[in-house]
Amino acid sequence: MHRGVAARGRAASPGVVSWAKGGLPQGPRRGCGKAIKGWLDKAFFQRWWAEQLPNIQAIVCKLVASGQIEFVNGGWCMHDEAAVHYIDMIDQTTLGHRMIKKQFNKTPSAGWQIDPFGHSAVQAYLLGAELGFNSLHFARIDYQDRERRKADKGLEVIWRGSRTFGSSAQIFTNVFPVNYSPPDGFGFEVLDEDIMPIQDDLQQFDNNVKERVNDFVAAAIAQANVTRTTHIMWTMGDDFSYQYAESWFRNMDKLIYHVNKDDRVHALYSTPSIYTDAKHASNESWPVKYDDYFPYADAKNAYWTGYYSSRPTFKRYVRVQSGYYLAARQIEFLLGRSSLGLFTTSLEDPMGIAQHHDAVSGTAKQHTTDDYSKRLALGASKVEKGVNIALTCLISSNRTCMSSVVKFSQCPLLNISYCPSTEETISSAKNLAIVAYNPLGWDRSDFIRVPVNDENLVVKSSDGTIIDSQLVEVDSVSRKLAKFYVKAYLGIKTDKPPRYWLIFQASVPPMGWNSYYISRSTGTGHNSTVYVATMVSPSNDMVEVGPGPLKMSFSLASGQLKRIFNSVSGVDLPVEQRFFWYRSNEGDTVDSQASGAYIFRPNVTKPTIASSSVPLKVIHGPLINEVHQQFNSWIYQVTRLYKNKEHAEVEYTIGPIPIDDDIGKEVITRLTTNMVTNGIFYTDSNGRDFIKRVRNHREDWGLNVTEPVAGNYYPVNLGVYVADEKYELSILVDRAVGASSIQDGELEIMLHRRILRDDSKGVDEPLGEVICLDGSCKGLTARGTYYVKVDKAGLGAHWRRTYGQQVYSPYLLAFAHEDETSWKSYNVAKASMMDVNYSLPDNVAIVTLQNLDDGTTLLRLAHLFQAAEDPRYSVIAKVELRKAFGKRSIKELTETNLSANQKKSEMKKLDWRVTGNTENGPAPLKGGPVDSESLVVELGPMEIRTFLLKF
Amino acid sequence: MHRGVAARGRAASPGVVSWAKGGLPQGPRRGCGKAIKGWLDKAFFQRWWAEQLPNIQAIVCKLVASGQIEFVNGGWCMHDEAAVHYIDMIDQTTLGHRMIKKQFNKTPSAGWQIDPFGHSAVQAYLLGAELGFNSLHFARIDYQDRERRKADKGLEVIWRGSRTFGSSAQIFTNVFPVNYSPPDGFGFEVLDEDIMPIQDDLQQFDNNVKERVNDFVAAAIAQANVTRTTHIMWTMGDDFSYQYAESWFRNMDKLIYHVNKDDRVHALYSTPSIYTDAKHASNESWPVKYDDYFPYADAKNAYWTGYYSSRPTFKRYVRVQSGYYLAARQIEFLLGRSSLGLFTTSLEDPMGIAQHHDAVSGTAKQHTTDDYSKRLALGASKVEKGVNIALTCLISSNRTCMSSVVKFSQCPLLNISYCPSTEETISSAKNLAIVAYNPLGWDRSDFIRVPVNDENLVVKSSDGTIIDSQLVEVDSVSRKLAKFYVKAYLGIKTDKPPRYWLIFQASVPPMGWNSYYISRSTGTGHNSTVYVATMVSPSNDMVEVGPGPLKMSFSLASGQLKRIFNSVSGVDLPVEQRFFWYRSNEGDTVDSQASGAYIFRPNVTKPTIASSSVPLKVIHGPLINEVHQQFNSWIYQVTRLYKNKEHAEVEYTIGPIPIDDDIGKEVITRLTTNMVTNGIFYTDSNGRDFIKRVRNHREDWGLNVTEPVAGNYYPVNLGVYVADEKYELSILVDRAVGASSIQDGELEIMLHRRILRDDSKGVDEPLGEVICLDGSCKGLTARGTYYVKVDKAGLGAHWRRTYGQQVYSPYLLAFAHEDETSWKSYNVAKASMMDVNYSLPDNVAIVTLQNLDDGTTLLRLAHLFQAAEDPRYSVIAKVELRKAFGKRSIKELTETNLSANQKKSEMKKLDWRVTGNTENGPAPLKGGPVDSESLVVELGPMEIRTFLLKF
Repeated sequence: MHRGVAARGRAASPGVVSWAKGGLPQGPRRGCGKAIKGWLDKAFFQRWWAEQLPNIQAIVCKLVASGQIEFVNGGWCMHDEAAVHYIDMIDQTTLGHRMIKKQFNKTPSAGWQIDPFGHSAVQAYLLGAELGFNSLHFARIDYQDRERRKADKGLEVIWRGSRTFGSSAQIFTNVFPVNYSPPDGFGFEVLDEDIMPIQDDLQQFDNNVKERVNDFVAAAIAQANVTRTTHIMWTMGDDFSYQYAESWFRNMDKLIYHVNKDDRVHALYSTPSIYTDAKHASNESWPVKYDDYFPYADAKNAYWTGYYSSRPTFKRYVRVQSGYYLAARQIEFLLGRSSLGLFTTSLEDPMGIAQHHDAVSGTAKQHTTDDYSKRLALGASKVEKGVNIALTCLISSNRTCMSSVVKFSQCPLLNISYCPSTEETISSAKNLAIVAYNPLGWDRSDFIRVPVNDENLVVKSSDGTIIDSQLVEVDSVSRKLAKFYVKAYLGIKTDKPPRYWLIFQASVPPMGWNSYYISRSTGTGHNSTVYVATMVSPSNDMVEVGPGPLKMSFSLASGQLKRIFNSVSGVDLPVEQRFFWYRSNEGDTVDSQASGAYIFRPNVTKPTIASSSVPLKVIHGPLINEVHQQFNSWIYQVTRLYKNKEHAEVEYTIGPIPIDDDIGKEVITRLTTNMVTNGIFYTDSNGRDFIKRVRNHREDWGLNVTEPVAGNYYPVNLGVYVADEKYELSILVDRAVGASSIQDGELEIMLHRRILRDDSKGVDEPLGEVICLDGSCKGLTARGTYYVKVDKAGLGAHWRRTYGQQVYSPYLLAFAHEDETSWKSYNVAKASMMDVNYSLPDNVAIVTLQNLDDGTTLLRLAHLFQAAEDPRYSVIAKVELRKAFGKRSIKELTETNLSANQKKSEMKKLDWRVTGNTENGPAPLKGGPVDSESLVVELGPMEIRTFLLKF
Repeated sequence: MHRGVAARGRAASPGVVSWAKGGLPQGPRRGCGKAIKGWLDKAFFQRWWAEQLPNIQAIVCKLVASGQIEFVNGGWCMHDEAAVHYIDMIDQTTLGHRMIKKQFNKTPSAGWQIDPFGHSAVQAYLLGAELGFNSLHFARIDYQDRERRKADKGLEVIWRGSRTFGSSAQIFTNVFPVNYSPPDGFGFEVLDEDIMPIQDDLQQFDNNVKERVNDFVAAAIAQANVTRTTHIMWTMGDDFSYQYAESWFRNMDKLIYHVNKDDRVHALYSTPSIYTDAKHASNESWPVKYDDYFPYADAKNAYWTGYYSSRPTFKRYVRVQSGYYLAARQIEFLLGRSSLGLFTTSLEDPMGIAQHHDAVSGTAKQHTTDDYSKRLALGASKVEKGVNIALTCLISSNRTCMSSVVKFSQCPLLNISYCPSTEETISSAKNLAIVAYNPLGWDRSDFIRVPVNDENLVVKSSDGTIIDSQLVEVDSVSRKLAKFYVKAYLGIKTDKPPRYWLIFQASVPPMGWNSYYISRSTGTGHNSTVYVATMVSPSNDMVEVGPGPLKMSFSLASGQLKRIFNSVSGVDLPVEQRFFWYRSNEGDTVDSQASGAYIFRPNVTKPTIASSSVPLKVIHGPLINEVHQQFNSWIYQVTRLYKNKEHAEVEYTIGPIPIDDDIGKEVITRLTTNMVTNGIFYTDSNGRDFIKRVRNHREDWGLNVTEPVAGNYYPVNLGVYVADEKYELSILVDRAVGASSIQDGELEIMLHRRILRDDSKGVDEPLGEVICLDGSCKGLTARGTYYVKVDKAGLGAHWRRTYGQQVYSPYLLAFAHEDETSWKSYNVAKASMMDVNYSLPDNVAIVTLQNLDDGTTLLRLAHLFQAAEDPRYSVIAKVELRKAFGKRSIKELTETNLSANQKKSEMKKLDWRVTGNTENGPAPLKGGPVDSESLVVELGPMEIRTFLLKF
């Protein structure tokens, strides 16, 4: 099926050969048979495993038990490291690890990220050290960095990916000197034209043992010359390899035999663990590496920074499912063990494979991407069904759980204003009830926005009081979008797109729900639903917008944003925002490298502006003001300012990107200020740690700048910000994007790409996403939202962390139609898992709460702040589990490693000697052991603690 | 090693799937496991087998025993059918068959010639029926023929390849409807891009069982529509397939399961034997096919008639080794079992693989061809060593066999006048002794020609009498050739090429030897050695040449042959002989097909003449007259007429063919007469049966003539002739060539080819043979000989058959240096295996006499004439074995099938019903059982009888 996954994914290197100069390696040796690395993509392993006869399974079990087959990574896939969210990384790794534990009673100890296109700090310290891994292995780092490291024998390092944790979450990291293939001439794929099999039959003319052994020794010594200690690793495999494993093993058997007979070097079948143990036993000192390995370039015009933004709608789909999956598992937990079973498991496999480094990265072929989406959609629809039943049951005052009485439906296409439930005509017999579930541990008051067709509606909160609401006409761009995409995606013809957005603020308790009841206005009494379209005053060029503390000023002449003012904080910053597009380079006389799914190679440094003057429409109202800007025929933007919010929500609709000029376009939004940022900006690592970036600079080596734009792009999953002495300007995102600050005071993020050429890095298709209807295709339109806030210097973290969590975990909305009396009589309109008045502190999120199939419940708590990030929140946080779980009583609590495949107390850690650097400063704050009586969990900054609970 | 062999040779089709409409097939079914066809190239099987562990060998034995693996063909390779000699076909098949018999106790029963490029009559009746095969299977027949046969359901036939034997040597022949691959979409080679695996996992989106089963049924029905009976065969494999067998079997397993579940057709793993049995059981009637399937064309401009002549020097090398191997085995037999062991076995493997349809065919890549040559050379040099010892021993009067006293050497490069033994200065202490061994069963008087440097030499026969001899100056073309090629091939620098050819007539008894003693003339007495260079008389344009009954007349003005006159027979025929070359088509606007190693596609119908006027040199002498003609700078020809011979021996030296004009050239010699031949000419089948050819005509269908030259070429291994009411003009050849008669009264044979483009049929190299010395390369020069005779109508067969056998089996010459007294005292100068005065009749040849490793001796006797070919010789012939083996006493005689893997009496034969045709006329003459007392073997025309003897 997933041949697309295989496109890069099966970069299998089942054989790893080590050697030792002058004798045996220090590490353990296996005398019998072959020690080979096994599957790294557990998803593939499971499909294979299920087809095997018991005798084969028994052999595998034996080889795994003896260490001859080692599971590396052990996750469901070899996930991407740029476009993935850390919660997804944890989930998919946990899925694989627990299965390996169950099937083989093994805990993987080596990270094997050989192929991802750059490597993240979170991968190293969180999905490495915190998993209990002793080593991490990969191939792809910047070519300049690699050259320097080869000269210094610095390819192998002790990586301290976390500035917060330092050496307490470090990992031995082995970067291969070339790629993840064997040295030239030692690949033995059956149909390779240049295969050079070992011929040791003396009867044959082509007996080549002597030459091949000499070649082997020469290649080993060449590698040894750039490597510390006498041990080197050869990765005996490649993309698409082992179609016929015999071809490899037959030749490796011969090589090992003859090389060892020759005795200049010693060769053995090995595994990453055996290799790491040998390295550790050498007592060598290793250089220290901080932060991450982004961006990745393998040639001067080949910066792999395009994929940070490739396939933006798929990236959003994965991110939306991630938040949804988290919320659904909570609801599943709240319901308790029931006849529904674990209905959320139908998302675990599709979410797992979607994290692959050629999936969410946007670098799979179109049909493969379609398959990923299809699997997600199928999984999500099953989960949605389960959630609908569960909510019915939870909300029912007598816990009526029969699926026959399910009253809820959900609207996954709300983002394009499609929601049959809310669009339905509301009558007194069938009024609309909206239940909003809040997956966060905090009270929360977010705005709900649903499409409706009635003008006179009343919104009542769960206590029966009428609350403020506002209607805003659905703009024509959205109406067209809905009509087209609903037909294209669902095959449903919608003659009448909805007329209005109904907007109101919903207040929901932590890990609980609240419900809102919407009915037609009786015509008497107060009706707060208003709807205002402002007539722009021609006498004044500037218009100030905003119903609350945040005001934004726009020039009516240019249609451009000019200023942001916050009446609460006093922040007042001139800001301009524009859209541009970089012209994709198609390869030129200097370098044939084209921009593509992986590569970002703009044709020139300065992008083309998308518009000169921008028609503007401003909509006023008590809850929300909107500024609609038509930047050009294919870029539309709505900026939303809310009554009591201090940030702006900016929704863009980009596409179809025109290509009739035969020019590939990579579209960015750019905020421009006069801030003095000295080339510095900050981007997150997989939605977790913020890392300082300096334009045209690398911490590890003197950068030769060849791509002044592409070479300064970094992956963003949570947000990006700049700061100067006065202010911080932050952008939060709703999906993975690439971002940069190309000039001081600027921030830009890449939102959409449509490219006409392939970049020759493996997709073999141009990134030219289209959507087809009735046989005709047009460029894909991408819609999304980013969030902008300006804070006083040093105070931006709180919003970035807490609102960032809200962006990731929006309300889960469910809709029902019922008459008011019934609704009131049968239902628990509002509830929380937690004790009344208890909520988690702002610096803690529940990132996992999930019933497992073994009867336990998996709980992960994450501290959201880095050390020193915020004066108030970068401290030890406490979670009182008794209160958090309210009426549920915890009978047993076991703390585990991150992937919950071993007890925390049993995790083993290797000590490593490092060169030069010794850590100073205070040890990182970490929570102590959890007292089984009080059940209070402490979390230090950035700490994630994982527990298995029994209730 | 032999990747070149693999180039086409491993056209494995291990799986064969049959089906039956409406139920089970009539043939036997195997209920358990898989019945698969095994290896067809025994040479490959042996290499694989030798590497297997006993457990794998045991599994193979079991599968072979149960019939689940069937050896098809069973020869050492899948031999060619156009450029191979029948004796080589028999030898290589015997080698494989006896090994299979020994290892598995199996006798193959199906011929599997799926890939050769046309199919010979000898293959069908001799290497088919006479082996005991019940069926023959292949893919390649003329595309026009195929279409006609598909329409008539006539692809499967009863083939009566022998006009002499008719139905008594017929075979069921299955011609595949397309090629030897499965129907489109049913190939499962692991790395094929268009592979369509059967997905029957219901969990997967690409489950395609229904479609694939429908496709299967549709493909089966399509084939059934062109096939008689309800059984069809699918050949589940292709060139280069089964690199990973699992990929095929996994999918075939699924297909068979689901197709049978579907039940519209029935699929099973099958073998050619199972299929044939099912066909036989059907009681269907089949069309009869006569003669052969030559020439083969797969498109209108793609006649595979180039390979009849491709790589002429390799073709000669194989043929020379064939004759040598036959003679050496006789000498080995004559020596008797000795400490030497079976020294001729070193040629059995290289000779076996050289018969491959991409070996002797001239269609392997250059490096593969080099490998074939190297193996032959290594094998031959070992045999040569053995022969030298054996001759030393045989000739020694006291049977001194120690290798320390070996006195003999041989000269494999005599054809380019290189023979260190004879070139050495002759002194009284070291005179030259020449031993000539005659492998034929007849007395024989052929001329011996060796290079010498002395002028005054005396040749004495073994009884001490001086015999006539003649010296002829070595021409400058030969001197240059010797110098260059000896350096290039042997790395030996020959400063002084020999000055003279010494020529004398040697008379040797059947299967025996005679020796000649050459010393310096004492100056007194008669010295018959003469040497005459004629000065051409300018006053007369015509010169008549010939020391014996045959006279040839040449025009001094044009340098051309004009007439052949035989004073004995009275034949007098105007004959012209010229060289031409066809310009190779490189693909044109009509058709991109180029001439190449396989394909002969001349650019135009009329070839270019190689010369306008030809310088002529005539050499007269008492034993031999020579006419030297320099046709152009790269074609030289010497015509030799001998004292008492009635044919002309014509030696051509062609090359390097110039290509500086960027034109590929395919060189022919053409004899032109005024004979009235009505488009008819005759070519042999693998050196055995002559088959009547009619220009622009096929017996089996109405030919659409698209290639008036290439489409009339036929393979020749023995000879070609035309006849009219008065005369027969015959040419005998020294190797495989392509030949035709493009105009009435003409004969042409293609002698050399140098082509600049590949023909896209698989070699992937242009046929541009070069020879390199000191880093510079030039086109390969080909030297060879053809023999011309004119007979009265109806009387040509005797010469063609008997002299043809002499061409194939020349004297084996060995040289020694010894003083005359020693030579005479120690040696048996002349001897025969046979009783004095006994010899075989002219119509019988011993084609095999070989000691086998089981202690028995293999004897094959062949009648050389077809029925009605010659009034005197197309009769029952008798061989008196007691006399033939002289002093050796035969203790046991067992008649076997042709490959000696089963007793003749135990051979089983299927009867087949045929349509229309019923045979009339007398039953073929065949020899009766051999009386174990008298031991007289009778042979009918064309009969070959095989015996295992114990002495």
